[in-house]
Amino acid sequence: MKFLIFAFFGGVHLLSLCSGKAIYKNGISKRTFEEIKEEIASYGDVAKAIINLAVYGKAQNRSYERLALLVDTVGPRLSGSKNLEKAIQIMYQNLQQDELENVHLEPGRIPHWERGEESAVMLEPRIHKIAILGLGSSIGTPPEGITAEVLVVTSFDELQRRASEARGKIVVYNQPYINYSRTVQYRTQGAVEAAKVGALASLIRSVASFSIYSPHTGIQEYQDGVPRIPTACITVEDAEMMSRMASRGIRIVIQLKMGAKTYPDTDSFNTVAEITGSKYPEQVVLVSGHLDSWDVGQGAMDDGGGAFISWEALSLIKDLGLRPKRTLRLVLWTAEEQGGVGAFQYYQLHKVNISNYSLVMESDTGTFLPTGLQFTGSEKARAVMEEVMSLLQPLNVTQVLSHGEGTDINFWIKAGVPGASLLDDLYKYFFFHHSHGDTMTVMDPKQMNVAAAVWAVVSYVVADMEEMLPRS
Amino acid sequence: MKFLIFAFFGGVHLLSLCSGKAIYKNGISKRTFEEIKEEIASYGDVAKAIINLAVYGKAQNRSYERLALLVDTVGPRLSGSKNLEKAIQIMYQNLQQDELENVHLEPGRIPHWERGEESAVMLEPRIHKIAILGLGSSIGTPPEGITAEVLVVTSFDELQRRASEARGKIVVYNQPYINYSRTVQYRTQGAVEAAKVGALASLIRSVASFSIYSPHTGIQEYQDGVPRIPTACITVEDAEMMSRMASRGIRIVIQLKMGAKTYPDTDSFNTVAEITGSKYPEQVVLVSGHLDSWDVGQGAMDDGGGAFISWEALSLIKDLGLRPKRTLRLVLWTAEEQGGVGAFQYYQLHKVNISNYSLVMESDTGTFLPTGLQFTGSEKARAVMEEVMSLLQPLNVTQVLSHGEGTDINFWIKAGVPGASLLDDLYKYFFFHHSHGDTMTVMDPKQMNVAAAVWAVVSYVVADMEEMLPRS
Ligand SMILES: [Zn+2]
Ligand SMILES: [Zn+2]
Repeated sequence: MKFLIFAFFGGVHLLSLCSGKAIYKNGISKRTFEEIKEEIASYGDVAKAIINLAVYGKAQNRSYERLALLVDTVGPRLSGSKNLEKAIQIMYQNLQQDELENVHLEPGRIPHWERGEESAVMLEPRIHKIAILGLGSSIGTPPEGITAEVLVVTSFDELQRRASEARGKIVVYNQPYINYSRTVQYRTQGAVEAAKVGALASLIRSVASFSIYSPHTGIQEYQDGVPRIPTACITVEDAEMMSRMASRGIRIVIQLKMGAKTYPDTDSFNTVAEITGSKYPEQVVLVSGHLDSWDVGQGAMDDGGGAFISWEALSLIKDLGLRPKRTLRLVLWTAEEQGGVGAFQYYQLHKVNISNYSLVMESDTGTFLPTGLQFTGSEKARAVMEEVMSLLQPLNVTQVLSHGEGTDINFWIKAGVPGASLLDDLYKYFFFHHSHGDTMTVMDPKQMNVAAAVWAVVSYVVADMEEMLPRS
Repeated sequence: MKFLIFAFFGGVHLLSLCSGKAIYKNGISKRTFEEIKEEIASYGDVAKAIINLAVYGKAQNRSYERLALLVDTVGPRLSGSKNLEKAIQIMYQNLQQDELENVHLEPGRIPHWERGEESAVMLEPRIHKIAILGLGSSIGTPPEGITAEVLVVTSFDELQRRASEARGKIVVYNQPYINYSRTVQYRTQGAVEAAKVGALASLIRSVASFSIYSPHTGIQEYQDGVPRIPTACITVEDAEMMSRMASRGIRIVIQLKMGAKTYPDTDSFNTVAEITGSKYPEQVVLVSGHLDSWDVGQGAMDDGGGAFISWEALSLIKDLGLRPKRTLRLVLWTAEEQGGVGAFQYYQLHKVNISNYSLVMESDTGTFLPTGLQFTGSEKARAVMEEVMSLLQPLNVTQVLSHGEGTDINFWIKAGVPGASLLDDLYKYFFFHHSHGDTMTVMDPKQMNVAAAVWAVVSYVVADMEEMLPRS
């Protein structure tokens, strides 16, 4: 099937109706979808070999064990920290020892924020230690802390309605958890909105779907022209308790102390390794996860798992003696949690070659039991991806949903490169996300085996097919 | 059906086969089971009235709201603490304001232990703050702490096999969670077993079925003749991490500081209120939960819920203008968590009247969605309880399982008094048990409504039936 060129009109349903009959024309393309299906089907044995090695063979539990060793040794890996630096050094050595190719570090500058010592104590109506986690980029308090009465609101709307009550107070947000993307607005914008109405600090109910008195951190964003006030997350439990107290007319006073401080940006690196393509080495399928994490827990789930199934994908392919036609590139991003900082610098540097990127992949929503992929790309590309995923029938991981995305690959996706993210069981993801509970205890070696097999099959087949994925 | 006396031979199956036909004889008894069934069935309207009031009517969410107010106001209520004293005073007022009868406090002496400041830091192989909760009755460390190498074991058996390695170390137990009653042995006996082989301290994996980096406290027991060493629980996550490190041959060093101290016993009270019986006031059906808790979280689940559905049972009965023939007695125990201390003193004082106790009830394993009762008593009594529970068909809460029990009522049960405990959905109970997560957030008002209705129907009907529950 060499040198046949892709041709599609319309979506997948049309394609399957017509498969094998018509020859579609699109410029120079004259390949039928049936031919592409045949090409993909020819990878059936390779897919089975990858699955056998990853899930049942010698490589089983390897990504879990490798991850456990790294995160137990280093701990969490905050942007700008010594831990992250150490993790990058270890991963550089790991990838070299794994005999991957073109192992190198791509430098960049990343934020350096530290939470320092922090505490919150409810002084009225009774003494109660409040568990907090300062939010990334927050300023600290004066050393003596901020002691102020609390205004509890359940929404930005309520804050607006009660704006006149907020001046000089600590605003506590007890917003309900709807879903991450909606509710996280309170974490990112809570301080700005509270500052606009004169608050001295804001405490935000953790963005979590379940809690055992667990605070969850994450980035927050100041806005030019709005005073910067200290901001931290509190537990669901304390937010609800203060909300009940306030509804009873009880006056609440909190003393908040935060030693948070932003230092000058520091040097860091995206960590890169490859299996160089045999035929089109300049063309790339990129698999990735981020190596940085928040500074609590172990960053095992977010995103150790995604980083390590990405490494594992290359290891599996190498172990099987495979070399795809296109280059398979592993990137372990730095400073994702600060807004895809490392990935943005990578994009700026490499976007000149954007036409050579066939597919960008990122796993950054857990490596729990996968059911398929989320994918963004043309209908033509989606139809190809669905065929590729049919190779994972033995693992029953064949779904191709919409909205492939990831903070680190969105730069490419927005510029038109097809993008895929791992679709897995998110049920417990926001139990642990950005909390002390993001540790190896969350991770399941068998689930990681399956996720790694999916990641390896998809990346290898797309990298080895005669043609790049079609764009819109 | 007045003055008919109970008579049973054999178990419930025989009884139902024979119901309404034979007259069994047992001394002076000459009542058929059919007659008892009829008597119980005659409470159908009362049961419906209780259910309507508790679940659908004016009283709905009352036990939840009352509990929230208490635990938000007072916080956790450790044996010997000012908080517990305050809670008892508030409850005394609450029960009087609720116009219950014979509201009084029965004095006793209870343990007074305080955890003080405590911390653990892993110094090798890397600095890591370890979340701990000292265990009740533990001694503290010297002010400079105990700094020692760690020996990780997964069982008492392994500790025995490796006894020669334990001297001078901190023993870390990473026992798997089997179930509470089996696994809790590590919490209660871990320090003693570690001390026997020369350890300086013990750190025990929290007895929890699920964790978000949550330490769980609880009582532990020293043994005469064995050195007393400081002991605390750690999280599942840290126990597993140290176990992985140890299996890699990594040396682990921890600095443990505990300010725990035991003070002289203090005065406390079991809190009592009644609806006095109209016909046999000296006879008693006792409903109960414990008012004390551990010193973390709010003690909302353990055992605020049990205490407050017990109060609610009396409130519901009073609200409906009902007065059973026998006295319905509410007891809110003190110092349950220290081993049923208040309940033991109550038993010592009142056991002289044991023949007047028809049924002792305690709810102390959560007030989640109930499915019935656990019951200990004669087969005759069980058959009666099954009929009583059929009155709860409208709520689909009709099960009568074996093993009715509770730390506070076991004194009576062992002495032959029929005992019942609430059977509810335990799925999440050990997520929160004795942790910072035991707060109102765990509680569900609708589930408490149902639990209170069950508690009220059972206690009222058993208190109002013509005869006491039969004993063995
Ligand atoms: Zn992430
Ligand atoms: Zn309890």
